[in-house]
Amino acid sequence: MSEAPVRYAEDLVPGETVRLGTYRISRAELIAFARQWDPQSFHVDEAAAAGNRFGDVIASGLHTLAIFQRLAVLAGESDWAVIAGIRLSDVRFLRPVRPDTVLTGGVRVARIEVEPGRGRALVARAGWLTDDRGRVLEVESEAYVRCRPSGGA
Amino acid sequence: MSEAPVRYAEDLVPGETVRLGTYRISRAELIAFARQWDPQSFHVDEAAAAGNRFGDVIASGLHTLAIFQRLAVLAGESDWAVIAGIRLSDVRFLRPVRPDTVLTGGVRVARIEVEPGRGRALVARAGWLTDDRGRVLEVESEAYVRCRPSGGA
Repeated sequence: MSEAPVRYAEDLVPGETVRLGTYRISRAELIAFARQWDPQSFHVDEAAAAGNRFGDVIASGLHTLAIFQRLAVLAGESDWAVIAGIRLSDVRFLRPVRPDTVLTGGVRVARIEVEPGRGRALVARAGWLTDDRGRVLEVESEAYVRCRPSGGA
Repeated sequence: MSEAPVRYAEDLVPGETVRLGTYRISRAELIAFARQWDPQSFHVDEAAAAGNRFGDVIASGLHTLAIFQRLAVLAGESDWAVIAGIRLSDVRFLRPVRPDTVLTGGVRVARIEVEPGRGRALVARAGWLTDDRGRVLEVESEAYVRCRPSGGA
């Protein structure tokens, strides 16, 4: 995805923070995503949703989480030597996300635990998305990231 | 999504468990989902992935989680009087999910905490997906569900 050098576990710094780009969640995409993955009426049925407490459809939390992940990868995590994500240790959907909302946010390296002899580290990160009023999503997650190969630069 | 009667918080029973349907995650869908939401090389780049420890692309954990949510809604949760999901308190990606894997699983009502005077309850559920070797995903989540309206049947 990028010509930037690979960042191994040793290259990541606890506390380092990246600002994410922006993403506008259109009404059509909001409904299409939910029809496929989370077809509850308050996500997909505009007529039914008009009478509920939100007054309109709201985004599936999964959709908001997917937007966070896309922005985090595009903001530089695609250069990390990730082996695999292993856990979302906490995800909070703080406020409803409505059609045509513009989201942005950040992600911070929270913790790095090198596993000696296994060539990897557990890297925990804390991320968030905001709309124009404040946070709508908070995400704590863990992934395994490769350590720099022996003899590597 | 259904003509089944609405299930309010009072109608849910801690410990009740629903078996989910099945979902086959094709190679094309696995790569397309990841290109859009989680474009890390081990999800989207078959040539690069052939040389990694998994020997092939593996599904984004978000994709696996989305499949779980789809199956849970289709298995009956679309009849629950859900106000909104508020939290994923733990999501564990236990083993890689490969192309053409068939997933199934279950979901159990773990806890119901009625909030007196607010007309709602916090409902926690525990879900899982399996492939033919065992669990690949475990999900603990929380949502607000409406209590039965006063004077209702």
